[in-house]
Amino acid sequence: MDINEIISTIDTEVFGIWFLIGAALVFFMQAGFAMVETGFTRAKNAGNIIMKNLMDFCIGVPMFVFIGYGLLLGDDIGGIIGKPSLAIFSNYSEFNWSAFVFNMVFCATTATIVSGAMAERTKFISYCIYSGIISALIYPIEAHWIWGGGWLAQLGFHDFAGSCAIHMVGGISALIGAKILGPRIGKFITDKDGKITKVNAIPGHSLTLGALGCFILWFGWYGFNGAAATTGPQLGSIFLTTTIAPAVATVVCMIFTWVKYGKPDVSMCLNASLAGLVGITAGCDVMDAFGSTMVGVVSGLLVVFGVWLLDNVLHIDDPVGAVAVHMMNGIWGTLAVGLFATETAPECTVNGLFYGGGFDLLGKQALGVISVAAWTAVTITIVFFAIKKTIGLRASRHEEVVGLDITEHGLTSSYADFIPAMHIETNSSGKEKEVANVIPVAPVEKSVPVEHVKSSIVSDSDVKMTKVDIITNIERFEALKTALYDIGITGMTVTNTMGCGMQRGATEYYRGVPVEARLLPKVKVEVVVCKIPVEDVVAAAKNALYTGKVGDGKIFVYDVENVMKVRTGEQGYDALQDNN
Amino acid sequence: MDINEIISTIDTEVFGIWFLIGAALVFFMQAGFAMVETGFTRAKNAGNIIMKNLMDFCIGVPMFVFIGYGLLLGDDIGGIIGKPSLAIFSNYSEFNWSAFVFNMVFCATTATIVSGAMAERTKFISYCIYSGIISALIYPIEAHWIWGGGWLAQLGFHDFAGSCAIHMVGGISALIGAKILGPRIGKFITDKDGKITKVNAIPGHSLTLGALGCFILWFGWYGFNGAAATTGPQLGSIFLTTTIAPAVATVVCMIFTWVKYGKPDVSMCLNASLAGLVGITAGCDVMDAFGSTMVGVVSGLLVVFGVWLLDNVLHIDDPVGAVAVHMMNGIWGTLAVGLFATETAPECTVNGLFYGGGFDLLGKQALGVISVAAWTAVTITIVFFAIKKTIGLRASRHEEVVGLDITEHGLTSSYADFIPAMHIETNSSGKEKEVANVIPVAPVEKSVPVEHVKSSIVSDSDVKMTKVDIITNIERFEALKTALYDIGITGMTVTNTMGCGMQRGATEYYRGVPVEARLLPKVKVEVVVCKIPVEDVVAAAKNALYTGKVGDGKIFVYDVENVMKVRTGEQGYDALQDNN
Amino acid sequence: MDINEIISTIDTEVFGIWFLIGAALVFFMQAGFAMVETGFTRAKNAGNIIMKNLMDFCIGVPMFVFIGYGLLLGDDIGGIIGKPSLAIFSNYSEFNWSAFVFNMVFCATTATIVSGAMAERTKFISYCIYSGIISALIYPIEAHWIWGGGWLAQLGFHDFAGSCAIHMVGGISALIGAKILGPRIGKFITDKDGKITKVNAIPGHSLTLGALGCFILWFGWYGFNGAAATTGPQLGSIFLTTTIAPAVATVVCMIFTWVKYGKPDVSMCLNASLAGLVGITAGCDVMDAFGSTMVGVVSGLLVVFGVWLLDNVLHIDDPVGAVAVHMMNGIWGTLAVGLFATETAPECTVNGLFYGGGFDLLGKQALGVISVAAWTAVTITIVFFAIKKTIGLRASRHEEVVGLDITEHGLTSSYADFIPAMHIETNSSGKEKEVANVIPVAPVEKSVPVEHVKSSIVSDSDVKMTKVDIITNIERFEALKTALYDIGITGMTVTNTMGCGMQRGATEYYRGVPVEARLLPKVKVEVVVCKIPVEDVVAAAKNALYTGKVGDGKIFVYDVENVMKVRTGEQGYDALQDNN
Repeated sequence: MDINEIISTIDTEVFGIWFLIGAALVFFMQAGFAMVETGFTRAKNAGNIIMKNLMDFCIGVPMFVFIGYGLLLGDDIGGIIGKPSLAIFSNYSEFNWSAFVFNMVFCATTATIVSGAMAERTKFISYCIYSGIISALIYPIEAHWIWGGGWLAQLGFHDFAGSCAIHMVGGISALIGAKILGPRIGKFITDKDGKITKVNAIPGHSLTLGALGCFILWFGWYGFNGAAATTGPQLGSIFLTTTIAPAVATVVCMIFTWVKYGKPDVSMCLNASLAGLVGITAGCDVMDAFGSTMVGVVSGLLVVFGVWLLDNVLHIDDPVGAVAVHMMNGIWGTLAVGLFATETAPECTVNGLFYGGGFDLLGKQALGVISVAAWTAVTITIVFFAIKKTIGLRASRHEEVVGLDITEHGLTSSYADFIPAMHIETNSSGKEKEVANVIPVAPVEKSVPVEHVKSSIVSDSDVKMTKVDIITNIERFEALKTALYDIGITGMTVTNTMGCGMQRGATEYYRGVPVEARLLPKVKVEVVVCKIPVEDVVAAAKNALYTGKVGDGKIFVYDVENVMKVRTGEQGYDALQDNN
Repeated sequence: MDINEIISTIDTEVFGIWFLIGAALVFFMQAGFAMVETGFTRAKNAGNIIMKNLMDFCIGVPMFVFIGYGLLLGDDIGGIIGKPSLAIFSNYSEFNWSAFVFNMVFCATTATIVSGAMAERTKFISYCIYSGIISALIYPIEAHWIWGGGWLAQLGFHDFAGSCAIHMVGGISALIGAKILGPRIGKFITDKDGKITKVNAIPGHSLTLGALGCFILWFGWYGFNGAAATTGPQLGSIFLTTTIAPAVATVVCMIFTWVKYGKPDVSMCLNASLAGLVGITAGCDVMDAFGSTMVGVVSGLLVVFGVWLLDNVLHIDDPVGAVAVHMMNGIWGTLAVGLFATETAPECTVNGLFYGGGFDLLGKQALGVISVAAWTAVTITIVFFAIKKTIGLRASRHEEVVGLDITEHGLTSSYADFIPAMHIETNSSGKEKEVANVIPVAPVEKSVPVEHVKSSIVSDSDVKMTKVDIITNIERFEALKTALYDIGITGMTVTNTMGCGMQRGATEYYRGVPVEARLLPKVKVEVVVCKIPVEDVVAAAKNALYTGKVGDGKIFVYDVENVMKVRTGEQGYDALQDNN
Repeated sequence: MDINEIISTIDTEVFGIWFLIGAALVFFMQAGFAMVETGFTRAKNAGNIIMKNLMDFCIGVPMFVFIGYGLLLGDDIGGIIGKPSLAIFSNYSEFNWSAFVFNMVFCATTATIVSGAMAERTKFISYCIYSGIISALIYPIEAHWIWGGGWLAQLGFHDFAGSCAIHMVGGISALIGAKILGPRIGKFITDKDGKITKVNAIPGHSLTLGALGCFILWFGWYGFNGAAATTGPQLGSIFLTTTIAPAVATVVCMIFTWVKYGKPDVSMCLNASLAGLVGITAGCDVMDAFGSTMVGVVSGLLVVFGVWLLDNVLHIDDPVGAVAVHMMNGIWGTLAVGLFATETAPECTVNGLFYGGGFDLLGKQALGVISVAAWTAVTITIVFFAIKKTIGLRASRHEEVVGLDITEHGLTSSYADFIPAMHIETNSSGKEKEVANVIPVAPVEKSVPVEHVKSSIVSDSDVKMTKVDIITNIERFEALKTALYDIGITGMTVTNTMGCGMQRGATEYYRGVPVEARLLPKVKVEVVVCKIPVEDVVAAAKNALYTGKVGDGKIFVYDVENVMKVRTGEQGYDALQDNN
């Protein structure tokens, strides 16, 4: 054997193992997706999102074993599908175990992408069904076109690690799903004609977990993009492009959001890293440093544009930015191969438009994008509508408001038992005075009539002041607040608290043990009124809170001796006015 | 050299490196265990659990260096133990560095498993001791039998990656430890004869961290099961079985808990993934797709059964399900080798019962399980009793109630400084009215006597109403609540708050700096009474709270002008009755 | 080809891939640093710290592409710098892709280390600038000396994976940065002459995330130390030393803090693991089991000493211990090579002092430490001062107090939407009585005058009792507390709450959508006074809170009917005195 044959033999062995290590890294991306999706959504759905991320993989495995694997890698039938096969059971000793594992983890990634855009309002059973169908049918068939020897592969379409086959497909499914589902309650505010007048931000519950997820995804992406490499130089170049594109995208996004919104947006930059990774996925093996830089620049802008477009133009609610990240950058990355592919990249034998290769490759890439997008859009739409018409796709309003953790999984909270502690700055030192000079403070004497205060603690208003405490369910707070505003109340204090009473209603199970939810989360709203009659406050609160169900809440009325506003020194009635 | 010799040489080199990569992945499982155990237990012990997970590895290293490694891999003495040796110091250049690292990380896994079942009530010093003994003696000796050339290895017992050697051993130790320790306070409710009448769920404090831990464990498990592979096909097949078994187990568990408890249980499904992984560990290299599917099916059911069994029959409190996951599935997985081993798996040369191999292998597997279980049970029982009789095994009631973070490590809280924010749905739009129609709301007029309310805000009850605020320690809340129920109070509002007074008592250190814990966590219980005399409330509270120590709390009494119940429109006394 | 040539060829191929896998592991350490730094600091800066960790890598990439890579690995010029080059763009096909990726991730680590010590008070724009300069100039030039064929490399200075080149450089920059910035508000308490009289602990907000970060770092460190290995035995030995040193350091630290501070300190032990890893980094390839044990022993002590030194002697505020971990142990680890290097380690050809090699190697190591330290100190000082004099280095007092999340990034909170739930022990059983006997309880009758209480709920004090509720901004709490202490108030109840009023002030954006921050975090301080005139409380509160800005707060005054102290049975005025 000569040296080249030996190296080739070595590479076969070595890259066979690396192929599996890469697959393990891709599996680990499931953890990344779970953290990103749960961190960027609300605490009340955290367990549900975890469960969905876990189940899309776990349901995907049997789907892929019985159906998907054959459709993807079975003998090609007319360039369209692979021949279904159960060789995994019937002929295990000849089976390609590594290819199965590798393709399985990629398949699961596709299904996972969808869950983010449809988070916080999708029925769990419906999720299980469509996620299984993506793993069994939708993904394997289009992936057969691209990677299984199908017509796009034969044509010369290039998508090394799945900008198109995985991210665009997941992203399109996410877009259509989010559109069919409709937005989360409170995302868009409409006027009486149903026209959307305002877009609300619904921040997630843990940016740190979301960020951790992004780092895990980036880490896993070295496996995602690199696993299919077959030579050392190719893998080195893939790692290089997979580093440059997301880094550049993130920097571009940071600068752009800084300029446009006044401050660099953390969660958008995290999205931009992922956008750059999605963008480089198709061409990670055929681009050079310049190409990957350009991919990154566009991805960093595209993700901001995508989020803006969905929020403000399409009015589609995508809680984690899955459409902007995966669909838009999946399309961009696939097309970018046609622009930036270069023979200077190791093992690459084709040039894109900007490297003198003409429109040939770009045309193929565009054809691939269009055909795969059409396949995905048609099939997933059928799936979603079939589910919608039968078992329903969307959780009920009650389930959504209360949270899917409790309604779908009987979890009182994913953070049950959490007792927060508070840390407050300590500066009771000589330095305090120095500091006092830093903050522009008007002399107290000038505006606070000290003598007046000292003369009496009893209000000099001639109207009795009364404190009204309203204890009610968190979900009714917004209605209550609006009702109180409407009768002229301009300030209130809101505290998270717990009501403790006799248990009623359904029993939930935690690990098979019934959970007594006797401490129920409530809000306590404290209002102090003076000229506004207490009767009006009580009536407004009753109107806002009344449903006739247990848990509507209680109202307590107390006498108040006096109120003072610190800034103005006003007392009594005047102190209660917040408009000046 | 011919091609086979070259490939063999390549494999030796390649798998030598993969062996170490696998070991690093197994090390990373320490992070997974730490997150699972801390996420599924309470916040007040989070730092303690982290510390235990860190220290079992760190203490394990010197134990393994000086004692364990020799007992495990030293020259075999009669099939029972390896010859102790300090060659790591005396003959470093000839030492098998990789084997040391590989066996070290496996050893640490065994010790880690135990900490979960004994969490939240074990003394830290005692933990350090028994954890060290497991790493020094208990694990190395039985692992010598299986992997060090001992009698089970000679016999043909097969446990590729440790269902028996690691998981069953850890799980049995966990079971015995949890039994000897007794349950956490509040886990089981007994009647006056000491008979357990009720099992309580004690949810953990962060499902997201727990889930992250499970994903990390699954990821690491590809190294755990795969590290010892020696050929490419074998590794591919191991990855395949290591993917199928946990996925199937999770799906089966989801369906089972859905049917049995009405909803799919998130934390149980996460346990089921681990159960499937434990189940496939012994036979990951000798099973095919069918065998691993069967292992998964049984594991998914077994974990639910195991949790139920411990809670409801054995009455042993295992906070994280370590016994159900590791012991039960460790036994199952080891026996399953005797059922499903098949020569169709790469490098496998033996068949189990269902593949025509008869009872031979199954018998050996059973013998291994019994003998290793006996060894473990006897030795760990001796260790636990020796500790119990000397320095004690269990934390004091005070330490347990207050939490081990503060009592064992001087940590005010693992989440010191955490200030929660609240997000509430915004729907102050035209849509609100549309929504109002979705929720079945009885007309307010029908049940609320509006005129009545408007006529007077002063209660028409002829009994004075009084608000009693009780501020006390969190640990006394349950006693207070019971006392208040006993005198007929049916509703109260509970708020987490902080008492700020002069510091007294012991000083704690954080990173060597004394911590002033001037803001101490308290609960504020607000009760409004009418016919129940305030004297009775005060007396009941005093009786429940009095210990004679600083921090018993204070009681404040206020006048209340009126109370209204929103649902019924009742006022005054009637509004305070929660039983209708 | 003979067997050795073949093995050599194999190793070239295999270690070429492992080199990249190692680089991916080093990238993953970014996640570890992000979690450590955010977990060990306060929640109000969590998003800012995440962003800094993300951006140091992302900004570092273009810096390294255009400038750093050439300076580090370009043709050597006089042993001092590499020749700048843009071959990555001009000659991509001949470029060393793997070397670029590998050196890039190491470069980013250096920049990341600095952010921890300067956390919670550094301007974001300034961070971006100095972080970019470290990646472009400071690190590449000294790394050229050590790894790029520069004068230290020629001399025989040994720093295998960067105790000196990375950790010491990062640590020195951290030290100088933290010194120039000054401490966080509240870290050190000074008397009127500016002398520091007290050091405060400022605990982080999530020990669990911090611990996760440490585990991720340790995991990644197997790549960090091992990536540059070139033979199997060398890699095995590196994994061994990289396991022993941190484990020993952690055990030593645990014992030391246990003895010195009375309890084993969790966060210090996590630091100790990192300290041991830093310590072994330079000599991981040249030490044996004994050497790595010694390195661990010293590292475990050094980190505690370092934290103490900065807090109590140097009075430099390093929130995460970066200086103690990276600088001190970086120096120690580099010098330790000169003490413990041994030819018994695979591929090692030199002996240190304790292995008969004399002072030669130690002298070279010391020279390297001094020269690299000098280079770093001079250049980073120039950078920091240049930034300080132009755009400023430190955030304003307001920004620091309110938190960098909101001021730098418009993030209301990284944990927006988080609703805590509370879990309380349930023991309303026969066991409660048994338990009551465990806690030493003095008989209630002895100290509580029950008849007295029953006779009247109205206080027998002849002074009216009044409750004063003060609702204000969290940042003014400390001043308020001090003011209330000064007039003789000894106890108060503090609750996190939210003020809900009309929005005013700047609009923040979250992902491009304006955020209505209508629910603003506030504290509610409840004080009940009797002999202290309410006028005095109001005046003191006004003085403490008054700034003349919106949000100074409000004061509410209520009548109190009675107060009781549970422990003493005192009522009225007496119950309010906390000094007995």
